[in-house]
Amino acid sequence: MSRRGLLIILSSPSGAGKSTLAGRLRQWDDTLQFSVSATTRAPRPGEVNGQDYYFSSVADFQDQVAAGDMLEHARVFENYYGSPKGPVKTAIESGRDVLFDIDWQGAQQIKNSDLQEHVLSIFILPPSIKELHRRLVSRGQDAPEVIEKRMQKSWDEISHWDGYDYVLVNDDLDTTEDRLKTIIAAERLRRPQQPHLVDHVRKLQSEFGDRP
Amino acid sequence: MSRRGLLIILSSPSGAGKSTLAGRLRQWDDTLQFSVSATTRAPRPGEVNGQDYYFSSVADFQDQVAAGDMLEHARVFENYYGSPKGPVKTAIESGRDVLFDIDWQGAQQIKNSDLQEHVLSIFILPPSIKELHRRLVSRGQDAPEVIEKRMQKSWDEISHWDGYDYVLVNDDLDTTEDRLKTIIAAERLRRPQQPHLVDHVRKLQSEFGDRP
Repeated sequence: MSRRGLLIILSSPSGAGKSTLAGRLRQWDDTLQFSVSATTRAPRPGEVNGQDYYFSSVADFQDQVAAGDMLEHARVFENYYGSPKGPVKTAIESGRDVLFDIDWQGAQQIKNSDLQEHVLSIFILPPSIKELHRRLVSRGQDAPEVIEKRMQKSWDEISHWDGYDYVLVNDDLDTTEDRLKTIIAAERLRRPQQPHLVDHVRKLQSEFGDRP
Repeated sequence: MSRRGLLIILSSPSGAGKSTLAGRLRQWDDTLQFSVSATTRAPRPGEVNGQDYYFSSVADFQDQVAAGDMLEHARVFENYYGSPKGPVKTAIESGRDVLFDIDWQGAQQIKNSDLQEHVLSIFILPPSIKELHRRLVSRGQDAPEVIEKRMQKSWDEISHWDGYDYVLVNDDLDTTEDRLKTIIAAERLRRPQQPHLVDHVRKLQSEFGDRP
Protein backbone atom coordinates (compact mmCIF):
# COMPACT_ATOMS: atom_id res chain seq x y z
CA MET A 1 0.00 0.00 0.00
CA SER A 2 1.36 3.39 -0.95
CA ARG A 3 -0.30 5.34 1.83
CA ARG A 4 -2.91 5.15 4.54
CA GLY A 5 -5.86 7.53 4.44
CA LEU A 6 -6.53 10.24 6.97
CA LEU A 7 -9.57 10.86 9.13
CA ILE A 8 -10.05 14.55 8.38
CA ILE A 9 -12.30 16.21 10.93
CA LEU A 10 -13.72 19.56 9.86
CA SER A 11 -15.59 21.38 12.61
CA SER A 12 -16.99 24.89 12.83
CA PRO A 13 -20.07 26.78 13.93
CA SER A 14 -22.69 26.74 11.19
CA GLY A 15 -22.30 29.78 9.00
CA ALA A 16 -18.49 29.75 8.93
CA GLY A 17 -18.25 28.30 5.43
CA LYS A 18 -17.56 24.65 6.25
CA SER A 19 -19.95 23.07 3.72
CA THR A 20 -18.66 25.25 0.87
CA LEU A 21 -15.08 24.35 1.78
CA ALA A 22 -15.87 20.64 2.06
CA GLY A 23 -17.45 20.79 -1.40
CA ARG A 24 -14.36 22.48 -2.83
CA LEU A 25 -12.09 19.86 -1.30
CA ARG A 26 -14.11 17.13 -2.94
CA GLN A 27 -13.79 18.90 -6.29
CA TRP A 28 -10.03 19.09 -5.74
CA ASP A 29 -9.74 15.40 -4.91
CA ASP A 30 -12.63 13.12 -5.83
CA THR A 31 -11.12 10.21 -3.89
CA LEU A 32 -11.97 12.14 -0.73
CA GLN A 33 -14.85 10.30 0.91
CA PHE A 34 -17.46 11.91 3.18
CA SER A 35 -18.25 9.90 6.28
CA VAL A 36 -21.87 8.76 6.22
CA SER A 37 -23.52 8.84 9.65
CA ALA A 38 -25.73 6.16 11.10
CA THR A 39 -29.01 7.29 12.63
CA THR A 40 -32.05 5.81 14.31
CA ARG A 41 -34.37 8.49 12.99
CA ALA A 42 -36.76 7.60 10.16
CA PRO A 43 -35.67 8.37 6.58
CA ARG A 44 -37.17 11.50 5.08
CA PRO A 45 -38.63 11.40 1.57
CA GLY A 46 -35.83 11.06 -0.97
CA GLU A 47 -33.11 10.06 1.51
CA VAL A 48 -31.08 7.06 0.38
CA ASN A 49 -29.76 4.48 2.84
CA GLY A 50 -25.94 4.32 2.75
CA GLN A 51 -25.73 7.67 0.99
CA ASP A 52 -27.49 10.24 3.18
CA TYR A 53 -27.41 8.06 6.29
CA TYR A 54 -27.18 4.48 7.36
CA PHE A 55 -30.68 4.04 8.79
CA SER A 56 -30.71 1.74 11.75
CA SER A 57 -32.97 0.46 14.51
CA VAL A 58 -32.24 1.55 18.07
CA ALA A 59 -31.32 -2.02 19.02
CA ASP A 60 -28.86 -2.38 16.11
CA PHE A 61 -27.37 1.03 16.83
CA GLN A 62 -26.81 0.17 20.48
CA ASP A 63 -25.29 -3.18 19.53
CA GLN A 64 -22.81 -1.38 17.26
CA VAL A 65 -21.87 1.04 20.05
CA ALA A 66 -21.44 -1.86 22.50
CA ALA A 67 -19.23 -3.71 19.99
CA GLY A 68 -17.00 -0.63 19.58
CA ASP A 69 -18.11 -0.23 15.98
CA MET A 70 -18.96 3.48 16.32
CA LEU A 71 -16.09 5.96 16.12
CA GLU A 72 -18.31 8.50 17.86
CA HIS A 73 -21.97 8.78 18.68
CA ALA A 74 -24.45 11.07 20.40
CA ARG A 75 -28.08 11.16 21.32
CA VAL A 76 -29.99 14.19 20.06
CA PHE A 77 -33.45 14.28 21.65
CA GLU A 78 -34.94 10.83 20.99
CA ASN A 79 -32.57 9.85 18.15
CA TYR A 80 -29.05 8.44 17.98
CA TYR A 81 -26.43 9.56 15.51
CA GLY A 82 -22.98 8.10 15.01
CA SER A 83 -20.03 7.41 12.67
CA PRO A 84 -19.67 3.69 11.88
CA LYS A 85 -16.06 2.56 12.01
CA GLY A 86 -16.23 -0.16 9.31
CA PRO A 87 -16.48 2.01 6.17
CA VAL A 88 -13.83 4.40 7.56
CA LYS A 89 -11.33 1.58 8.17
CA THR A 90 -11.96 0.16 4.69
CA ALA A 91 -11.38 3.58 3.12
CA ILE A 92 -8.20 4.53 4.98
CA GLU A 93 -6.68 1.08 4.53
CA SER A 94 -7.05 1.48 0.78
CA GLY A 95 -5.45 4.94 0.91
CA ARG A 96 -8.54 7.13 0.75
CA ASP A 97 -9.10 10.01 3.19
CA VAL A 98 -12.44 10.31 4.98
CA LEU A 99 -13.91 13.72 5.78
CA PHE A 100 -16.00 14.13 8.94
CA ASP A 101 -18.39 17.02 9.30
CA ILE A 102 -18.94 16.73 13.07
CA ASP A 103 -19.03 18.87 16.19
CA TRP A 104 -16.40 19.15 18.92
CA GLN A 105 -17.88 16.31 20.97
CA GLY A 106 -17.70 13.88 18.06
CA ALA A 107 -14.19 15.14 17.25
CA GLN A 108 -13.09 14.44 20.82
CA GLN A 109 -14.39 10.87 20.65
CA ILE A 110 -12.63 10.16 17.35
CA LYS A 111 -9.40 11.60 18.75
CA ASN A 112 -9.64 9.13 21.61
CA SER A 113 -10.37 6.17 19.32
CA ASP A 114 -7.88 3.53 18.20
CA LEU A 115 -7.52 5.40 14.88
CA GLN A 116 -6.22 8.53 16.63
CA GLU A 117 -2.81 8.55 14.96
CA HIS A 118 -4.52 8.98 11.58
CA VAL A 119 -6.71 11.89 12.67
CA LEU A 120 -6.24 15.39 11.28
CA SER A 121 -8.54 17.91 12.96
CA ILE A 122 -9.27 21.35 11.58
CA PHE A 123 -11.52 24.05 13.01
CA ILE A 124 -12.92 26.87 10.87
CA LEU A 125 -13.56 30.17 12.66
CA PRO A 126 -15.72 32.97 11.26
CA PRO A 127 -14.11 36.41 10.75
CA SER A 128 -16.71 38.00 13.05
CA ILE A 129 -19.89 37.24 15.00
CA LYS A 130 -21.72 39.80 12.89
CA GLU A 131 -20.82 37.88 9.74
CA LEU A 132 -21.86 34.58 11.35
CA HIS A 133 -25.18 36.11 12.37
CA ARG A 134 -25.69 37.52 8.87
CA ARG A 135 -25.14 34.10 7.30
CA LEU A 136 -27.49 32.39 9.77
CA VAL A 137 -30.21 34.98 9.13
CA SER A 138 -29.83 34.93 5.34
CA ARG A 139 -30.50 31.18 5.21
CA GLY A 140 -34.24 31.49 5.57
CA GLN A 141 -37.22 32.98 7.29
CA ASP A 142 -36.45 31.67 10.75
CA ALA A 143 -37.92 33.27 13.84
CA PRO A 144 -35.54 35.37 16.00
CA GLU A 145 -35.72 32.73 18.78
CA VAL A 146 -34.53 30.05 16.33
CA ILE A 147 -31.67 32.27 15.16
CA GLU A 148 -30.76 33.02 18.77
CA LYS A 149 -30.69 29.32 19.60
CA ARG A 150 -28.34 28.72 16.65
CA MET A 151 -26.12 31.59 17.78
CA GLN A 152 -25.85 30.02 21.24
CA LYS A 153 -24.98 26.65 19.67
CA SER A 154 -22.41 28.37 17.44
CA TRP A 155 -20.77 29.98 20.43
CA ASP A 156 -20.66 26.65 22.26
CA GLU A 157 -18.88 25.19 19.23
CA ILE A 158 -16.44 28.13 18.89
CA SER A 159 -15.48 27.87 22.56
CA HIS A 160 -13.88 24.48 21.81
CA TRP A 161 -11.64 25.79 19.03
CA ASP A 162 -8.46 25.02 20.96
CA GLY A 163 -8.82 21.24 20.83
CA TYR A 164 -7.94 21.13 17.14
CA ASP A 165 -4.62 20.60 15.31
CA TYR A 166 -5.26 23.47 12.91
CA VAL A 167 -7.55 26.49 13.26
CA LEU A 168 -8.26 28.68 10.24
CA VAL A 169 -10.06 32.01 10.23
CA ASN A 170 -12.23 31.98 7.11
CA ASP A 171 -11.71 35.61 6.06
CA ASP A 172 -11.50 34.63 2.43
CA LEU A 173 -12.76 31.36 0.92
CA ASP A 174 -9.95 30.98 -1.63
CA THR A 175 -7.22 31.50 0.96
CA THR A 176 -8.86 29.06 3.36
CA GLU A 177 -9.28 26.52 0.54
CA ASP A 178 -5.57 26.79 -0.36
CA ARG A 179 -4.58 26.37 3.26
CA LEU A 180 -6.76 23.30 3.66
CA LYS A 181 -5.14 21.74 0.59
CA THR A 182 -1.63 22.49 1.85
CA ILE A 183 -2.46 21.00 5.25
CA ILE A 184 -3.96 17.84 3.76
CA ALA A 185 -1.06 17.42 1.29
CA ALA A 186 1.45 17.69 4.15
CA GLU A 187 -0.43 15.46 6.59
CA ARG A 188 -0.58 12.72 3.95
CA LEU A 189 3.22 12.63 4.22
CA ARG A 190 3.29 11.99 7.99
CA ARG A 191 5.02 8.82 9.05
CA PRO A 192 1.88 6.96 10.22
CA GLN A 193 0.31 7.62 6.79
CA GLN A 194 3.27 6.03 4.99
CA PRO A 195 3.26 2.33 5.94
CA HIS A 196 5.51 1.47 2.99
CA LEU A 197 8.38 3.17 4.84
CA VAL A 198 8.66 0.08 7.04
CA ASP A 199 9.38 -1.98 3.92
CA HIS A 200 11.88 0.58 2.67
CA VAL A 201 13.84 0.48 5.95
CA ARG A 202 13.74 -3.35 5.89
CA LYS A 203 15.22 -3.21 2.40
CA LEU A 204 17.96 -0.82 3.60
CA GLN A 205 18.67 -3.13 6.54
CA SER A 206 19.11 -6.15 4.31
CA GLU A 207 21.32 -4.13 1.92
CA PHE A 208 23.39 -3.01 4.90
CA GLY A 209 23.83 -6.63 6.03
CA ASP A 210 24.73 -7.77 2.49
CA ARG A 211 27.27 -5.06 1.72
CA PRO A 212 30.76 -6.24 0.74
CA MET B 1 2.72 38.68 16.58
CA SER B 2 1.46 37.05 13.41
CA ARG B 3 3.00 33.65 13.98
CA ARG B 4 5.48 31.76 16.12
CA GLY B 5 8.49 30.13 14.46
CA LEU B 6 9.09 26.40 14.29
CA LEU B 7 12.04 24.35 15.48
CA ILE B 8 12.62 22.32 12.32
CA ILE B 9 14.78 19.27 12.98
CA LEU B 10 16.31 17.70 9.91
CA SER B 11 18.09 14.41 10.58
CA SER B 12 19.56 11.81 8.27
CA PRO B 13 22.62 9.65 7.80
CA SER B 14 25.36 11.60 6.06
CA GLY B 15 25.14 11.08 2.33
CA ALA B 16 21.33 11.23 2.14
CA GLY B 17 21.24 14.78 0.74
CA LYS B 18 20.42 16.72 3.90
CA SER B 19 22.89 19.59 3.41
CA THR B 20 21.78 20.16 -0.19
CA LEU B 21 18.14 20.21 0.92
CA ALA B 22 18.84 22.56 3.83
CA GLY B 23 20.58 24.93 1.40
CA ARG B 24 17.60 24.84 -0.96
CA LEU B 25 15.20 25.60 1.89
CA ARG B 26 17.24 28.63 2.81
CA GLN B 27 17.11 29.83 -0.80
CA TRP B 28 13.34 29.37 -0.72
CA ASP B 29 12.95 31.33 2.51
CA ASP B 30 15.83 33.50 3.64
CA THR B 31 14.17 34.17 7.02
CA LEU B 32 14.93 30.53 7.84
CA GLN B 33 17.68 30.56 10.44
CA PHE B 34 20.21 27.77 10.97
CA SER B 35 20.83 26.90 14.59
CA VAL B 36 24.44 27.66 15.53
CA SER B 37 25.93 25.09 17.91
CA ALA B 38 28.02 25.86 20.95
CA THR B 39 31.23 23.88 21.35
CA THR B 40 34.18 23.63 23.72
CA ARG B 41 36.60 22.66 20.96
CA ALA B 42 39.12 25.26 19.77
CA PRO B 43 38.19 27.34 16.70
CA ARG B 44 39.83 26.21 13.45
CA PRO B 45 41.44 28.78 11.17
CA GLY B 46 38.76 30.92 9.53
CA GLU B 47 35.93 29.88 11.85
CA VAL B 48 33.89 32.82 13.14
CA ASN B 49 32.40 32.88 16.64
CA GLY B 50 28.59 33.14 16.52
CA GLN B 51 28.53 32.10 12.89
CA ASP B 52 30.23 28.69 12.62
CA TYR B 53 29.95 27.97 16.33
CA TYR B 54 29.61 29.67 19.65
CA PHE B 55 33.03 28.89 21.11
CA SER B 56 32.88 28.33 24.83
CA SER B 57 34.99 27.18 27.76
CA VAL B 58 34.11 23.87 29.40
CA ALA B 59 33.08 25.70 32.60
CA ASP B 60 30.76 28.09 30.74
CA PHE B 61 29.30 25.24 28.71
CA GLN B 62 28.56 23.21 31.82
CA ASP B 63 27.01 26.26 33.52
CA GLN B 64 24.68 26.71 30.53
CA VAL B 65 23.68 23.03 30.67
CA ALA B 66 23.07 23.28 34.44
CA ALA B 67 20.95 26.42 33.94
CA GLY B 68 18.79 24.64 31.33
CA ASP B 69 20.08 26.93 28.60
CA MET B 70 20.96 24.10 26.21
CA LEU B 71 18.15 22.57 24.14
CA GLU B 72 20.32 19.51 23.62
CA HIS B 73 23.95 18.64 24.15
CA ALA B 74 26.39 15.78 23.80
CA ARG B 75 29.98 14.96 24.56
CA VAL B 76 32.01 13.75 21.58
CA PHE B 77 35.38 12.44 22.77
CA GLU B 78 36.83 15.29 24.87
CA ASN B 79 34.58 18.06 23.50
CA TYR B 80 31.05 19.22 24.23
CA TYR B 81 28.57 20.30 21.59
CA GLY B 82 25.13 21.76 22.15
CA SER B 83 22.29 23.97 20.89
CA PRO B 84 21.89 27.14 23.01
CA LYS B 85 18.25 27.90 23.75
CA GLY B 86 18.49 31.72 23.84
CA PRO B 87 18.93 32.49 20.12
CA VAL B 88 16.26 29.88 19.26
CA LYS B 89 13.68 31.43 21.59
CA THR B 90 14.44 34.92 20.24
CA ALA B 91 14.00 33.70 16.66
CA ILE B 92 10.75 31.76 17.11
CA GLU B 93 9.20 34.50 19.24
CA SER B 94 9.74 36.92 16.37
CA GLY B 95 8.20 34.48 13.89
CA ARG B 96 11.33 33.00 12.33
CA ASP B 97 11.83 29.23 11.97
CA VAL B 98 15.08 27.66 13.14
CA LEU B 99 16.59 24.70 11.30
CA PHE B 100 18.53 22.08 13.29
CA ASP B 101 20.95 19.77 11.57
CA ILE B 102 21.32 17.25 14.41
CA ASP B 103 21.31 13.51 15.02
CA TRP B 104 18.56 11.39 16.59
CA GLN B 105 19.91 11.86 20.12
CA GLY B 106 19.81 15.65 19.85
CA ALA B 107 16.37 15.43 18.22
CA GLN B 108 15.09 13.37 21.15
CA GLN B 109 16.34 15.94 23.66
CA ILE B 110 14.71 18.86 21.81
CA LYS B 111 11.44 16.90 21.58
CA ASN B 112 11.51 16.55 25.36
CA SER B 113 12.28 20.24 25.95
CA ASP B 114 9.80 22.93 26.96
CA LEU B 115 9.64 24.03 23.30
CA GLN B 116 8.31 20.63 22.20
CA GLU B 117 4.98 21.91 20.89
CA HIS B 118 6.85 24.00 18.31
CA VAL B 119 9.03 21.14 17.05
CA LEU B 120 8.71 19.72 13.54
CA SER B 121 10.96 16.72 12.99
CA ILE B 122 11.83 15.31 9.60
CA PHE B 123 14.06 12.37 8.73
CA ILE B 124 15.61 11.93 5.28
CA LEU B 125 16.23 8.33 4.18
CA PRO B 126 18.51 7.38 1.28
CA PRO B 127 17.01 5.40 -1.62
CA SER B 128 19.52 2.59 -1.06
CA ILE B 129 22.59 1.64 0.98
CA LYS B 130 24.58 1.34 -2.25
CA GLU B 131 23.80 4.97 -3.07
CA LEU B 132 24.68 6.07 0.48
CA HIS B 133 28.00 4.21 0.23
CA ARG B 134 28.70 5.72 -3.18
CA ARG B 135 28.14 9.25 -1.83
CA LEU B 136 30.35 8.62 1.22
CA VAL B 137 33.15 7.23 -0.97
CA SER B 138 32.95 10.03 -3.55
CA ARG B 139 33.54 12.67 -0.90
CA GLY B 140 37.28 12.14 -0.69
CA GLN B 141 40.19 9.78 -0.46
CA ASP B 142 39.24 8.23 2.84
CA ALA B 143 40.61 4.86 3.88
CA PRO B 144 38.16 1.90 3.75
CA GLU B 145 38.16 1.72 7.58
CA VAL B 146 37.02 5.34 7.78
CA ILE B 147 34.27 4.71 5.22
CA GLU B 148 33.20 1.59 7.13
CA LYS B 149 33.01 3.58 10.38
CA ARG B 150 30.81 6.16 8.68
CA MET B 151 28.58 3.41 7.29
CA GLN B 152 28.12 2.00 10.80
CA LYS B 153 27.26 5.47 12.08
CA SER B 154 24.83 5.96 9.20
CA TRP B 155 23.09 2.72 10.02
CA ASP B 156 22.81 3.70 13.68
CA GLU B 157 21.15 6.95 12.56
CA ILE B 158 18.80 5.21 10.08
CA SER B 159 17.66 2.76 12.76
CA HIS B 160 16.04 5.69 14.63
CA TRP B 161 13.93 6.81 11.65
CA ASP B 162 10.66 6.03 13.38
CA GLY B 163 10.97 8.74 16.05
CA TYR B 164 10.24 11.50 13.51
CA ASP B 165 7.00 13.25 12.49
CA TYR B 166 7.79 12.98 8.80
CA VAL B 167 10.12 10.58 6.97
CA LEU B 168 11.01 11.23 3.34
CA VAL B 169 12.89 8.89 1.00
CA ASN B 170 15.20 11.12 -1.02
CA ASP B 171 14.80 9.39 -4.40
CA ASP B 172 14.72 12.69 -6.21
CA LEU B 173 16.00 16.01 -4.84
CA ASP B 174 13.30 18.18 -6.47
CA THR B 175 10.46 16.01 -5.17
CA THR B 176 11.94 15.93 -1.67
CA GLU B 177 12.45 19.71 -1.76
CA ASP B 178 8.79 20.24 -2.76
CA ARG B 179 7.62 17.93 0.00
CA LEU B 180 9.72 19.73 2.59
CA LYS B 181 8.22 23.06 1.52
CA THR B 182 4.67 21.70 1.69
CA ILE B 183 5.32 20.27 5.15
CA ILE B 184 6.82 23.50 6.48
CA ALA B 185 4.03 25.63 4.93
CA ALA B 186 1.40 23.44 6.61
CA GLU B 187 3.12 23.18 9.99
CA ARG B 188 3.33 26.97 10.14
CA LEU B 189 -0.48 26.92 10.22
CA ARG B 190 -0.74 24.65 13.28
CA ARG B 191 -2.57 26.12 16.22
CA PRO B 192 0.48 26.51 18.51
CA GLN B 193 2.21 28.50 15.73
CA GLN B 194 -0.69 30.96 15.50
CA PRO B 195 -0.79 32.82 18.83
CA HIS B 196 -2.93 35.59 17.31
CA LEU B 197 -5.85 33.12 17.23
CA VAL B 198 -6.30 33.68 20.96
CA ASP B 199 -6.91 37.38 20.26
CA HIS B 200 -9.30 36.55 17.44
CA VAL B 201 -11.40 34.28 19.68
CA ARG B 202 -11.40 36.96 22.41
CA LYS B 203 -12.69 39.42 19.82
CA LEU B 204 -15.43 36.96 18.81
CA GLN B 205 -16.32 36.45 22.46
CA SER B 206 -16.73 40.17 23.09
CA GLU B 207 -18.77 40.53 19.87
CA PHE B 208 -20.95 37.65 21.02
CA GLY B 209 -21.53 39.34 24.37
CA ASP B 210 -22.28 42.71 22.74
CA ARG B 211 -24.75 41.44 20.13
CA PRO B 212 -28.21 43.04 20.16
